[in-house]
Amino acid sequence: MKPRLVALLAGALVLTVPGATAHATAQTTGQAAGQATGQAAGQATVADTPGLPGRNNAITDVPGVKVGQVQSAKAPYLTGTTVIYTPQMSVTGVDQRGGAPATKETDLLDPLNSNPGVNAVMLGGSSMYGLAAGDGIIRWLEERGEGVRVGAGVAPIVPAADIFDLGRGGDFKARTTPEWGYLAAQAAKEGPVRQGVVGGGTGARAGGLKGGVGTASVILSDGTVVGAIVVVNSVGSPVDPRDCSLFAARYELAGEFRGLQTPKAKECQKAAAADAPSMNTTIAVVATNAPLEKAAAARMAGNAQDGLSRAINPMHTLGDGDTIFATSTGTGTPLRVNNPADTRKLNEIFNAGADTLTRAVGHAMLTATTVGTATSYCDRYPSACKKLSPLPADKQGEAPDVTRASLAAVADKFRDAPALAE
Amino acid sequence: MKPRLVALLAGALVLTVPGATAHATAQTTGQAAGQATGQAAGQATVADTPGLPGRNNAITDVPGVKVGQVQSAKAPYLTGTTVIYTPQMSVTGVDQRGGAPATKETDLLDPLNSNPGVNAVMLGGSSMYGLAAGDGIIRWLEERGEGVRVGAGVAPIVPAADIFDLGRGGDFKARTTPEWGYLAAQAAKEGPVRQGVVGGGTGARAGGLKGGVGTASVILSDGTVVGAIVVVNSVGSPVDPRDCSLFAARYELAGEFRGLQTPKAKECQKAAAADAPSMNTTIAVVATNAPLEKAAAARMAGNAQDGLSRAINPMHTLGDGDTIFATSTGTGTPLRVNNPADTRKLNEIFNAGADTLTRAVGHAMLTATTVGTATSYCDRYPSACKKLSPLPADKQGEAPDVTRASLAAVADKFRDAPALAE
Repeated sequence: MKPRLVALLAGALVLTVPGATAHATAQTTGQAAGQATGQAAGQATVADTPGLPGRNNAITDVPGVKVGQVQSAKAPYLTGTTVIYTPQMSVTGVDQRGGAPATKETDLLDPLNSNPGVNAVMLGGSSMYGLAAGDGIIRWLEERGEGVRVGAGVAPIVPAADIFDLGRGGDFKARTTPEWGYLAAQAAKEGPVRQGVVGGGTGARAGGLKGGVGTASVILSDGTVVGAIVVVNSVGSPVDPRDCSLFAARYELAGEFRGLQTPKAKECQKAAAADAPSMNTTIAVVATNAPLEKAAAARMAGNAQDGLSRAINPMHTLGDGDTIFATSTGTGTPLRVNNPADTRKLNEIFNAGADTLTRAVGHAMLTATTVGTATSYCDRYPSACKKLSPLPADKQGEAPDVTRASLAAVADKFRDAPALAE
Repeated sequence: MKPRLVALLAGALVLTVPGATAHATAQTTGQAAGQATGQAAGQATVADTPGLPGRNNAITDVPGVKVGQVQSAKAPYLTGTTVIYTPQMSVTGVDQRGGAPATKETDLLDPLNSNPGVNAVMLGGSSMYGLAAGDGIIRWLEERGEGVRVGAGVAPIVPAADIFDLGRGGDFKARTTPEWGYLAAQAAKEGPVRQGVVGGGTGARAGGLKGGVGTASVILSDGTVVGAIVVVNSVGSPVDPRDCSLFAARYELAGEFRGLQTPKAKECQKAAAADAPSMNTTIAVVATNAPLEKAAAARMAGNAQDGLSRAINPMHTLGDGDTIFATSTGTGTPLRVNNPADTRKLNEIFNAGADTLTRAVGHAMLTATTVGTATSYCDRYPSACKKLSPLPADKQGEAPDVTRASLAAVADKFRDAPALAE
């Protein structure tokens, strides 16, 4: 198959090789595999074009990152679970900025604490109740012998943050459970990531519109990959009240929003302000294959909050539990925040994390579809989306629904406790 | 004098009374003085139009806030000091997000610490050396008997943050000293605030352009006033690389940018990226006359970081020491972050703080003038500014230069230590 040469406005040259394997593309684009900073152990280096999104424009473009998502959008359910799984473990930090978080296993991510890495991060629905879904991810990891070694067993490390979506499917008690987490972990894989009304974003709303899951990635100058995945469920709006464009549209990379336009003025009536205090929360993971020390990961998470601020306004309200994890799959000598020789590289990575997260919010809003009274951006502003070309089928990814049968198939996983002594 | 009725596009009605006193305007506009939340003790309520900037579009529109600024822009100096003075003391919080801060008296602002309020906040130049200027503010306060009562004396509380501007005037040793702080405190007053190359922003640069001091304010729905003042000195750029407009321009309120336009495409060549790691820092104070508990002030400061993120990209880099103080002059029962009855009001205040700070960055960039090789935004993009109408003379404010004579006049203030025992 012959590479197709595409000249972009920016002057960058992109070689696209439809259907090529990662290995073939790496050779074709002439990016030396060794150039990439911090390859994750056991992962092939994805060599793409600096300044452009990775091959799937997804967090899974970061070597060493897999994503699994399950959900149910059938009443009375409207919730789900997303797991970001790093099979080789990853150094992870967190930054918590919203006023009403629902989180788990975040304290151990403090650079002053000894945790050496995590197995997975969960971005879930069902708020504090849904944190229970993380137990299923832990069980799945335990079965595979993954986690920090502790005597005869393993201690799987799965930090989690959940959005508030309780009751949005019709029943306040229709929530994710450990089985959902187990199924999400089972579904984890590389490649395209399903976006929109899926996984932890199934019940999401954003500033009066339907929210959901979005993802994006970018290749840095030295081949380092930075990716982001977000569940957009904000009190604030992702829509600029001046012209009803998406704030994130201004950060579009290489036509990734596929023909998005500013809506016609007549469609842009004053949007209902998020007037009454509401319960929401936007949660995200940013990732890179550059090796980061734990403090650098925490800083990357903090800088990524800036990306949310640019995509959503207001951000970090008292009704939001906004929490961002940053995770590094890179191995080798880690980049350190107090090493001047690392400053330039770290700033590039941190900034890319923020901008990639902004773009991921845009993708979430454009892929979300109307559910009940929660109208999608494209249904609310049809003139903005009328020229939108659909994502190619092989880039859409998968996210299986949770069913009675799939729940029943894993229910036994949680019944293995030894009998109590008489 | 007859009020002039101005109909705005938004449908709001503004009564402008040139030259009217605060009291007269309060009566004329029909805003009940009692409507405003949390009047500062001893301050007349400024009753302006909700949704619009206050009368001077400055942090001094917040009752109980005075600003004093001094500087020298004559080689080898290019630095100065800005003091935000709250004569009745104010409940203050801080949020520190950049990677390389120069700060003083910030730990006592932690809501877990007992500090009941501050007398002033300094936003200075001259980095860690310039923190010494705060000693002059402390001396000035001590002379007036202001501070927390401690036995026979007072303990003035003056948190401070400084920008990095060392050597920009030509001599690395040309820095602010305690005398500068004393002179800035002497200069503190209500009314218009001088912007641009003044005070702590004298040596400021922002993403390769000249930075400086900017301020803005807004009146909330119940008459509460929110204001901001910023020293823009960022590694990142306040200019959108897509069209070379100021990011902040999208947040303009009521024509405050006085005819600013998007520059012509030919002027918008790719700006030099902030490539090499540089030393910078953006610092700010946001203020309100709503009564805030200390934790709410800290949260207001944190949310205001979102306003910087929208005005500057990248923000909070490892070479920035970005620090924001939030200060409440209000008295009475404070609004609390964990009181659901206060949530709506607090979110409105916090969001206004962020947006007002974004706008203040715009004012800083538009009022800054070229100094040496540091080109102003308007000189770099003349087509953007060609229709800019100047600020009326009575809105420009004052900021006296530091001179040999003014330094000599206060030098004795720092020589009053009792003689050592033999």
